[in-house]
Amino acid sequence: MLHGKSLIAGQLAGAGSTTFRARNPATGAELEPAFREATAAEAARAVDAAAEAFADYGARRPEERARLLEAIAAEIEALGDALIERTTSETGLPAARITGERARTCGQLRLFAELVREGSWVDARIDTELLERRPAPRPDIRRMLKPIGPVVVFGASNFPLAFSTAGGDTASALAAGCPVVVKAHPAHPGCGELVAGAIARAAAGSGLHPGVFSFVHGGAAIGVALVQHPATTAVGFTGSHAAGRALFDAANSRQKPIPVFAEMSSVNPVFVLPHALAERGDAIAQGLLGSFTLGVGQFCTKPGLVFALRGPAMDAFVDKLAVSVRQAASGTMLTPSIRAAFERARADLTAVEGVRGVASSTEASAAGATSASPSVALTSAARFLAEPLLAHEVFGPFVLVIGCDDADEMLACVRALDGQLTATLHGTEADLAVAGTLLEAAESRAGRIIVNGFPTGVEVSPAMHHGGPYPATTDVRFTSVGTAAILRFARPICYQGFPDALLPAELENANPRNLLRTVNGAPTRDPL
Amino acid sequence: MLHGKSLIAGQLAGAGSTTFRARNPATGAELEPAFREATAAEAARAVDAAAEAFADYGARRPEERARLLEAIAAEIEALGDALIERTTSETGLPAARITGERARTCGQLRLFAELVREGSWVDARIDTELLERRPAPRPDIRRMLKPIGPVVVFGASNFPLAFSTAGGDTASALAAGCPVVVKAHPAHPGCGELVAGAIARAAAGSGLHPGVFSFVHGGAAIGVALVQHPATTAVGFTGSHAAGRALFDAANSRQKPIPVFAEMSSVNPVFVLPHALAERGDAIAQGLLGSFTLGVGQFCTKPGLVFALRGPAMDAFVDKLAVSVRQAASGTMLTPSIRAAFERARADLTAVEGVRGVASSTEASAAGATSASPSVALTSAARFLAEPLLAHEVFGPFVLVIGCDDADEMLACVRALDGQLTATLHGTEADLAVAGTLLEAAESRAGRIIVNGFPTGVEVSPAMHHGGPYPATTDVRFTSVGTAAILRFARPICYQGFPDALLPAELENANPRNLLRTVNGAPTRDPL
Repeated sequence: MLHGKSLIAGQLAGAGSTTFRARNPATGAELEPAFREATAAEAARAVDAAAEAFADYGARRPEERARLLEAIAAEIEALGDALIERTTSETGLPAARITGERARTCGQLRLFAELVREGSWVDARIDTELLERRPAPRPDIRRMLKPIGPVVVFGASNFPLAFSTAGGDTASALAAGCPVVVKAHPAHPGCGELVAGAIARAAAGSGLHPGVFSFVHGGAAIGVALVQHPATTAVGFTGSHAAGRALFDAANSRQKPIPVFAEMSSVNPVFVLPHALAERGDAIAQGLLGSFTLGVGQFCTKPGLVFALRGPAMDAFVDKLAVSVRQAASGTMLTPSIRAAFERARADLTAVEGVRGVASSTEASAAGATSASPSVALTSAARFLAEPLLAHEVFGPFVLVIGCDDADEMLACVRALDGQLTATLHGTEADLAVAGTLLEAAESRAGRIIVNGFPTGVEVSPAMHHGGPYPATTDVRFTSVGTAAILRFARPICYQGFPDALLPAELENANPRNLLRTVNGAPTRDPL
Repeated sequence: MLHGKSLIAGQLAGAGSTTFRARNPATGAELEPAFREATAAEAARAVDAAAEAFADYGARRPEERARLLEAIAAEIEALGDALIERTTSETGLPAARITGERARTCGQLRLFAELVREGSWVDARIDTELLERRPAPRPDIRRMLKPIGPVVVFGASNFPLAFSTAGGDTASALAAGCPVVVKAHPAHPGCGELVAGAIARAAAGSGLHPGVFSFVHGGAAIGVALVQHPATTAVGFTGSHAAGRALFDAANSRQKPIPVFAEMSSVNPVFVLPHALAERGDAIAQGLLGSFTLGVGQFCTKPGLVFALRGPAMDAFVDKLAVSVRQAASGTMLTPSIRAAFERARADLTAVEGVRGVASSTEASAAGATSASPSVALTSAARFLAEPLLAHEVFGPFVLVIGCDDADEMLACVRALDGQLTATLHGTEADLAVAGTLLEAAESRAGRIIVNGFPTGVEVSPAMHHGGPYPATTDVRFTSVGTAAILRFARPICYQGFPDALLPAELENANPRNLLRTVNGAPTRDPL
């Protein structure tokens, strides 16, 4: 059923001789068929086709882009159980999770369709002519956001649907008007192939240039070649710091550098303030367990560090966490290498002097090389501040609790942190009333601050910001989740002195698309 | 009267031993006093102070930022003729031009004050809680733009006021809430010192942490040190491609890369379409002369290439241009090195086989090593397409006319161009009706497209976009002129589950600042 080839501008491509197979992480078994890595020529052809398609697709009416996004969602749904089954066998993620992720993926595509159909995201601005102005008249000036050009997308291992082939990067790039070349994730190539086929069918059914979407198998060299192709204009990436930085460096060493939006690493600190700890430490421990073990701890927003003030309430909190962790289920991680990296990082961290393992799940590990059990360890703020390794991300179901002597030490800890996607505070009204400095410090380090919740669960909505200072992402100014993600793939174009007939519809006097526009500095939907 | 020192967080700093003097480009005379380059320690101190000031200034109410910007404008105006005289003697630019530029600079500061006072630029977005949603409730999520942190600004030689110490980069960074460290331009250090003093007085009068602004003399090494200081979070630059790229590379080779907004080089092509050429070739030639000789051709938007179809109308156009150029005045360029680079670039270009010098100003050059005369040269599209050197920027009063055989050849020329700040079309209604492909190609290469006008004259307004694909700028998504320039120095922060009392005013339920916000996807000024 699966062909195992790349899909370049609607055509299968399999000229390469290197092959690989997916594995079922739960059993270790190799899965059919063999997948064929693309050649450098095939990868270049994908970007060339995207550049050619840009002339067509970039100029399509928003309604056509919206219909493409909706058609992709419908085609993905039409894949039915075959997609769920293949994805489950390639990732070890349970069918219920994949089904939920499919709903999120299709919902995301439809949300971008709605955004594009409404259209005001283009931030249309019009300054009308002022002929009488002195010393010189002001010309008529109009500006809007337009698509940046071909985008290369690298999907994530941990979201085979929502952040991969037809995930948030692809959806927002297509919504902006940009053709997309996806570098297939080698851990879920069959899932990728099924989704790529769905996108290609949707594009064909919409009468679009087939170069609007390509899907390319390959390793790191193919990835760099896609990023360095002269026609590539932007890159979306979700994955490790090492891989993200390599692509960032490759993009910036081009003769003409291009933006790379890489979402890389985050330990997502949680601060439990004294009254909350005393009043509902048990509930927080229970919620924390659910959050750091969700998806076997394989979320970029997994809380990895928990800070609290030392004392009886913290002891009780750690005890409760220990009891829960011992009873927690082990799970199947995405790949043997992710599991190996998890075990190595956890071992390195717990080997640091002054770190004490508190509890591990007592459940027998499942068979195979990918099973991982939740665990929790404990250290002091003094040790945390002295040992930078303790702030490193451990990607998997592990959390480190850090006992602080006082609020100042807790503040010193947040100030010692690198850039983060999220920071979380648990506090009562009384706690929060005196947490201003801590909140400010958290804000300087993170893109999203959560009060009395948990960072896992990233809403796909207009107000979401999924990003943060480096190394959380390579560009602190943009989000990869939510409707604002479209702004990554657009650039302003300014039209000066244009007759109405030559302007894009978004900027015409009559405002035929009924956009909210800024006219002479004031927002309005009125025609001119 | 001038002290010749750096100004670091309100204190004079002159520990360095290297000194330099400004020169009057019109006479070649050295000007008093000697200026002292900052030491590496002084430069680091400026950024450290900016980081410290950020905690104060970044949290100030928008009204306080607006007042600072207005106070800076007032202090600059209060410098009176002393500023005009010093700037004139350092740049060779006439007093009328400097007076106009001062008005533009102060207007720009006040425009940003108005933007910040109104406040909706922060793009506030609120997604309200949906407790009943299944499978999981939606938390309350709110997001707005907040200042990115300390910004280092490198001013331009050709705009000693409007794009230098208190220019567009400084104004937009301060408006966003970011402290600024200006690397003083060595060609107008006295002008810089006067303006820096005005800013420091305004900051002191506003009761702000003095680290909100510093002004540092120094060479390339000091510039790189400022960019690579760990506390620097963004860079604004206007100048040459070589210098801009060096800073871009320095910023991206940091352990934690930061954005660099460098506005570098552009030849600003002009396309004169057949009917317009026939009907008003003389007027276009006259307008072109005014545009490419304005400010002795020292504008980033100076039109450097003019494309037209060969034939009698083009011959007449070139003749008219030649007559005008011969009568045009020579002028004083900004520095001997800019003049030397101009003469070299023009000589290299006109030495290319198939390029013919058409006319030069017959006016005797003024005395000194900085005088330059307008001139025009002619070549064919075939030569232009064969010789990449012909597309290089010649910074000064020179224009190259390129004769094309037909519309296809003109299209090939625009497609051969690098990224540009602007592209200009002159055409009648009939010309423009068939210019769709040319317009699209121009749009793919430039940030601003002008119809029946000239690219010099960059309006400071909401709809202006002054930017373009590399090498015009390092980041095609942002403008350095107009109110949208503020977006370079801001990043989104997301607040999840926050009690109303802890939210920034911009996101409070009551909407006390009366902002236009996006609530559950729809724009409104209503409170929640």
